[in-house]
Amino acid sequence: MSKNKTEGGITYPTGFRATGLYSGVKKNGNPDMALIVSDADCVAAGVFTTNQVKAPAVRLSQRRVRGKGLRAIVVNSGNANACNGEQGERDALSISEKLSLHLGCDTKKILLASTGVIGRPLDMEKIVAALPRLVATATREGYEDCARGIMTTDTKSKSAQAEGLVEGRTVRVGGIAKGVGMIHPQMATLLVFLTTDAAVEKEALRMILSQASDRTFNALTVDGDTSTNDTAIILANGQAGNLPVAKNRESFRELFSLVLSVCESLRDQLVRDGEGVTKVIRIIVGGARTKNDARKVAQSISRSLLVKTAFFGEDVNWGRIMVAIGNSGVRVYEERIDIFMGEVALVHRGVGLGALQEEKALEVMKKKEITLRVMLGIGPMEAEYWTTDLSVDYVKINAGYKGRT
Amino acid sequence: MSKNKTEGGITYPTGFRATGLYSGVKKNGNPDMALIVSDADCVAAGVFTTNQVKAPAVRLSQRRVRGKGLRAIVVNSGNANACNGEQGERDALSISEKLSLHLGCDTKKILLASTGVIGRPLDMEKIVAALPRLVATATREGYEDCARGIMTTDTKSKSAQAEGLVEGRTVRVGGIAKGVGMIHPQMATLLVFLTTDAAVEKEALRMILSQASDRTFNALTVDGDTSTNDTAIILANGQAGNLPVAKNRESFRELFSLVLSVCESLRDQLVRDGEGVTKVIRIIVGGARTKNDARKVAQSISRSLLVKTAFFGEDVNWGRIMVAIGNSGVRVYEERIDIFMGEVALVHRGVGLGALQEEKALEVMKKKEITLRVMLGIGPMEAEYWTTDLSVDYVKINAGYKGRT
Repeated sequence: MSKNKTEGGITYPTGFRATGLYSGVKKNGNPDMALIVSDADCVAAGVFTTNQVKAPAVRLSQRRVRGKGLRAIVVNSGNANACNGEQGERDALSISEKLSLHLGCDTKKILLASTGVIGRPLDMEKIVAALPRLVATATREGYEDCARGIMTTDTKSKSAQAEGLVEGRTVRVGGIAKGVGMIHPQMATLLVFLTTDAAVEKEALRMILSQASDRTFNALTVDGDTSTNDTAIILANGQAGNLPVAKNRESFRELFSLVLSVCESLRDQLVRDGEGVTKVIRIIVGGARTKNDARKVAQSISRSLLVKTAFFGEDVNWGRIMVAIGNSGVRVYEERIDIFMGEVALVHRGVGLGALQEEKALEVMKKKEITLRVMLGIGPMEAEYWTTDLSVDYVKINAGYKGRT
Repeated sequence: MSKNKTEGGITYPTGFRATGLYSGVKKNGNPDMALIVSDADCVAAGVFTTNQVKAPAVRLSQRRVRGKGLRAIVVNSGNANACNGEQGERDALSISEKLSLHLGCDTKKILLASTGVIGRPLDMEKIVAALPRLVATATREGYEDCARGIMTTDTKSKSAQAEGLVEGRTVRVGGIAKGVGMIHPQMATLLVFLTTDAAVEKEALRMILSQASDRTFNALTVDGDTSTNDTAIILANGQAGNLPVAKNRESFRELFSLVLSVCESLRDQLVRDGEGVTKVIRIIVGGARTKNDARKVAQSISRSLLVKTAFFGEDVNWGRIMVAIGNSGVRVYEERIDIFMGEVALVHRGVGLGALQEEKALEVMKKKEITLRVMLGIGPMEAEYWTTDLSVDYVKINAGYKGRT
């Protein structure tokens, strides 16, 4: 175990190496492959797309993540290898088989992820040729290259790290993510990879990843409204030497809070890098009967094209917010609804508070980060959701996406 | 009953008069009120928004439409009179009360509809002042003025009519509609008013309107995803002198087909006038286990921003269609899915058919009206859905809507 001063990201925890490079798949010459390797066998957990159309990489990782002694994650970007039939299945298998030879480990210890255009066969020649280079260049310093290697239309790489005590031992968590255009209700791929040197039991790790995802990445994209390739994986290699984290131990909460803080940082970076995003909107819905009700109302607001374009246009059109609340499928009472833009009260008991308040709200809407708060006046529960405005650039970017990879 | 040569629209059936005029509500000086009057008492039926936030006009019409002897529909555009609290309720009631004095009929015989901005009190002075003018100018020739009086951001007025035999008597059906930006998943108001001189039993009329709406207007907007003001009303004044149409009679089908043809024409006019629309896409999903499954898949495709922007960009990105199919919530099998763009096969059994087919499909996508066909390969059922592309202009229009009324 080297004790070098790693700055962060996916190799921040002890015992992980990483890299990213250009294999020749992307037309624009940007890095299009990445590798994360652990020096020691890992416990792993994963959260995968709920889309019924799944890329072979997802199906393969979904199976393998249940196994033991995982060692590496290999990612290719620019081509999702989805909807490629049996050829796609064979190619995914072949990548991990060939990589396992270079890594000198069992092929089942390798997880895969892909992101990019759907329905194009992988250029296997280029990808296979890049595998030995990936293995050769994976270092503790490679975290930034790795973060770049998984990007598609992202304008910035996304890394985060955290360090803290778990049962008295210093534990580190690192992570990278990619995904713009993944802001609900869109469906471009979200990839998240996390590493930790904590020792942790498999079931505890699964719960930690699942709960942290729910509070961050799943509050951006709706369950069931995901791409063919969405993947979040965490590898834990136990190198910190702590007593293994388990469900019923205090250490569960300690490790969870470290993982959550990394996920929150990645969530913030993702939302700020949304395609054509000019504004980030944090939607808080309170006063709901249940948390699920609050969440549904927040989702409905975040989904509304009319709300999203109004934010882009800095138009204090709270009627559109009322419409979205009324369409959420949750029982609401118009005459109990309050709406706040930032700290400015806009609607009280279902009725607008007038031009002066709207002028104040307009000042809030001119900012780049806006908190919209809706109080339903029914119960005690609250949920938070993140969305963005819908801009002219969003349409321009997505109207010509395929030609740009 | 005059026998003048009416050209069409809402006054095409015998015994109806109509008008539209400028009351002073809209800033741009366009007509903002409309009136439809029947000389004789009518049987009526209505279909209303499923949004829980409902304008007073909707609640009022929803109650009154169940009554007997209806005579008139009064509409104001430019102001939805929604989310105005008790003031809004009083104003809606007051309009119908004052209009009833001018018409010389019971106030309960008057139906109301409103469309426009939410959360602004009605300018009652101007609206009340316009009422006697509305009554004075309502004529058989006023159908076009009436169609204009209900418009908001529509660029064209929308009228249709049909004539046919019902139990051997000539029966006429007329209609007008407004609503751009109502193309799913948006939520601007859809208003549809239909008239017929057929004699028809109330329950039969209700079924006819409900079934015709399901096959036309509800295949544009999703159930539950509607504005505060959506309204479709049909008035039947019995002046054709036919034996009243009833559920179990052959005449039911005769009248239904006339109403349907008017609704289909209005649907076509609506979809072509969508905000910033450059392309109209007819989505046919076949091979489904149930009609509802087919409908859900078609809805999911029509909802996808990535699909809609790909149509705008003329990008043969069928992967986005596969993603939307996989996200529909309906059980599908990737390896059974076929996709056709027009007549061009793009995907067979879940796999793309290659560059040559994509080139041919591109030619189809360059057209203004495109049929996208998806075959699920599971069962015999089919559904049709209409949507549009998502254009740069859509965002521009909706980002500044409120200032433009």
